Amino acid sequence: MTLQSERKFEDRLQVVKDLLARNEDVALNEYIQQLHPADVAEILLKLDYEDQEKFFSILSWEQASRVLEEVDSETFTSLIGILKKEQKTLILDQMSQDDMVDLLADLSEEKRKEIISLLDLENAQEVRELLVYQEDTAGGIMTKDFIAVRKDITVYQAIEDLRESAGDAETVYYVYVVDNEERLVGVLSLRELIVSKPNKLIEDIMHEQVISVNLDTDQEEVARLVAKYDLLAIPVVDKDNKLMGIITVDDIIDVIEEEATEDIYKFAGTSEIEYTDEDKLSSRIYASVKSRLPWLIITMFGGLLSAKVIGSYEAALNKNTSIALFMPLLAGMGGNVGTQSSTLTVRGIAMGNIKGKEVLKTLLQEFSVGFLVGLVCSIIAALLSLVVQGDIALSIVVGIAMWANMITAASIGTLVPLVFKRIGVDPAVASAPFISTTIDITGLSIYFTLTTILLNKFIL
Amino acid sequence: MTLQSERKFEDRLQVVKDLLARNEDVALNEYIQQLHPADVAEILLKLDYEDQEKFFSILSWEQASRVLEEVDSETFTSLIGILKKEQKTLILDQMSQDDMVDLLADLSEEKRKEIISLLDLENAQEVRELLVYQEDTAGGIMTKDFIAVRKDITVYQAIEDLRESAGDAETVYYVYVVDNEERLVGVLSLRELIVSKPNKLIEDIMHEQVISVNLDTDQEEVARLVAKYDLLAIPVVDKDNKLMGIITVDDIIDVIEEEATEDIYKFAGTSEIEYTDEDKLSSRIYASVKSRLPWLIITMFGGLLSAKVIGSYEAALNKNTSIALFMPLLAGMGGNVGTQSSTLTVRGIAMGNIKGKEVLKTLLQEFSVGFLVGLVCSIIAALLSLVVQGDIALSIVVGIAMWANMITAASIGTLVPLVFKRIGVDPAVASAPFISTTIDITGLSIYFTLTTILLNKFIL
Repeated sequence: MTLQSERKFEDRLQVVKDLLARNEDVALNEYIQQLHPADVAEILLKLDYEDQEKFFSILSWEQASRVLEEVDSETFTSLIGILKKEQKTLILDQMSQDDMVDLLADLSEEKRKEIISLLDLENAQEVRELLVYQEDTAGGIMTKDFIAVRKDITVYQAIEDLRESAGDAETVYYVYVVDNEERLVGVLSLRELIVSKPNKLIEDIMHEQVISVNLDTDQEEVARLVAKYDLLAIPVVDKDNKLMGIITVDDIIDVIEEEATEDIYKFAGTSEIEYTDEDKLSSRIYASVKSRLPWLIITMFGGLLSAKVIGSYEAALNKNTSIALFMPLLAGMGGNVGTQSSTLTVRGIAMGNIKGKEVLKTLLQEFSVGFLVGLVCSIIAALLSLVVQGDIALSIVVGIAMWANMITAASIGTLVPLVFKRIGVDPAVASAPFISTTIDITGLSIYFTLTTILLNKFIL
Repeated sequence: MTLQSERKFEDRLQVVKDLLARNEDVALNEYIQQLHPADVAEILLKLDYEDQEKFFSILSWEQASRVLEEVDSETFTSLIGILKKEQKTLILDQMSQDDMVDLLADLSEEKRKEIISLLDLENAQEVRELLVYQEDTAGGIMTKDFIAVRKDITVYQAIEDLRESAGDAETVYYVYVVDNEERLVGVLSLRELIVSKPNKLIEDIMHEQVISVNLDTDQEEVARLVAKYDLLAIPVVDKDNKLMGIITVDDIIDVIEEEATEDIYKFAGTSEIEYTDEDKLSSRIYASVKSRLPWLIITMFGGLLSAKVIGSYEAALNKNTSIALFMPLLAGMGGNVGTQSSTLTVRGIAMGNIKGKEVLKTLLQEFSVGFLVGLVCSIIAALLSLVVQGDIALSIVVGIAMWANMITAASIGTLVPLVFKRIGVDPAVASAPFISTTIDITGLSIYFTLTTILLNKFIL
């Protein structure tokens, strides 16, 4: 598996399509066996419905459950639909619990019940419990497939237990240690277990300092802890410190990517739009409009406010329409430097770099940056507007307005996310429309005030 | 370790400061032992220089090396400086190779040589080899601390080897299998090794399908593979398939966060600004100005182009200055919807969701979204501008211009990143300034053309 993965994918898809067309089930089965379940799922998703059915029926039970872990809930239901009842039970019970819960969370109540009824009793009970937790909390992303041993058994016993039960567990890189009331009291790496003397007691070799999270810990905080402490899994405990589940690092990676996407979308003034390959274009468009329109309408009122501002200076505009020429330039440059400042600030807050004393330092820094880049830009703008329009007085006004505007914009872009953070509003969500509107209005006010004062004095 | 981590940090810092002030070395040492190295490093970084020295000298060798892995290169050199030579060697040899290489890469040639000369011969040689690779490739982020066994030994022998050598290796969750020319031929999980019969041969139980990357594979591609296949580590091979190193999932998390930050910054028109807590404010400001100014200057030329466009319609403006009132509204709304479209497209490309047939579908989708949100916004804009200005003809022009503008902006916002991707330019880096300028100019042209045609016909 190297860089040419996209090319490889097309090749594989072609091979599968050919073998399906020629009904070469045995050859196809052999071919699939060499592939990773994630690749098999990718191929499956690109086949049409009949081929999907045929292809899925060729998979072994083990493969089928691994593949189901990788698909979206719609494909999941349609694939499950083509199985016989006893097959369903076998395949579903093999699936990883956290992936199963994610899929079920997207289904209707009825569909969900139907699928849970197919699971074995213990698994069904656990899945039901997991479905209770909020999707973006530790409880919502954890799995109950973990290994825990009692603190009072020996290393030898622990290894024997592991041999018997490890098949089930999603990760056995950490062995969690509990007391006789299931409370989390320690942790061991599998390696430490293996290199220890067989007759030692677990409690004598375990680490007592365990980094854990609560059921309701936000998934972003969970990700932060896993990243900070370089963990492969993190245990989840309830309020009595009872071990309830674990979250593995592969799910943490998903959380990190999800949160980054969310932040990026919020900057652009759109909430996350969830759609899959299978969705119809019309429902994708509907979802997109629904998440984007509110932001656009909010900013439109901001735009109308700027119209009001300009309107109040219409007399000046009437005297010298050239003033209008540089309005987009000034508003645009203010917007650009403001976006830079707010992006750096919002990301800095999200990454935990701006707190305590750093807040004042950040403000001072952004003000200074606005001062410097504003100075450079205003000189260039004044010179170029002189070339474009040939009006010295206007060029001076444009230059000064640009400078004042950029300093203000950088300061507003920094201040707004900081204030929002302080009053408990998500800085990412609120900053983009609020900042662009504020900057537009202050920028235009600065420009027109300067125009009125300076141009009146010196020329008009 | 729960949610109150920020509060906890302040408490810990205070405890450490108090103990340092009272010179209670023994108590301090006991206190530190309960903490994770990442927490110890965090505390260390917040102390002033003298306290840092004192604090660091209290750490055990093992702790000192774990802490050094967590600090930046500046702190690293200053802390190393306070150690005696034999201490240096001991502590440096304990450090994880990939972290050490990251630190060394930021130092001067001279400093780097000095530190490498303190390492034991084998480690020094390996570190020198790692320093050759580009920082953002697999070679640049891999470690040579891995476990590999020959395919022709038994499970028993392999476990014995592991017991002896595992102390060194950064991860022993996967055991890589090589042939007698060091070529990667298979992989085993530690768990599989333990549950296998001791007299079996490794080659009979290993998986032959190993997902690996080359030395020069881009780190973003490495992250994509690790995320896709849910790996805890990925092996790195040279062109002859010889096993050269591994990359562990904790480093992959760093890569994912780094790349997300980079993308977010590029959107805002600024390259990544790397600075640490220790940097002086002046150097932070300098770094920030340097990375932001080029983008601002580029967009300024765009702003002057819009001035040119408005200038060519100055006659229309002279007749009716009210036209100027709605320029910021129109330009702003075009910019907003364009940013939404370009953000969704750029992120879609980065996440691998837009390829092949999806390209056309995405374009069609964004065009439709522009059409629909544009329709809603243009009706609202027309009505509100009527309220604000009371000019029916102008309101109609504003409405139509808004609609046309938003459809165009959504299409441009989608098309530009797609085209940039096709011609091999990073969509994230080039889109923001290019798109905002293009949209400003097309938006104003649409507005003025419509104004000239419609207002002339019906009113003026």
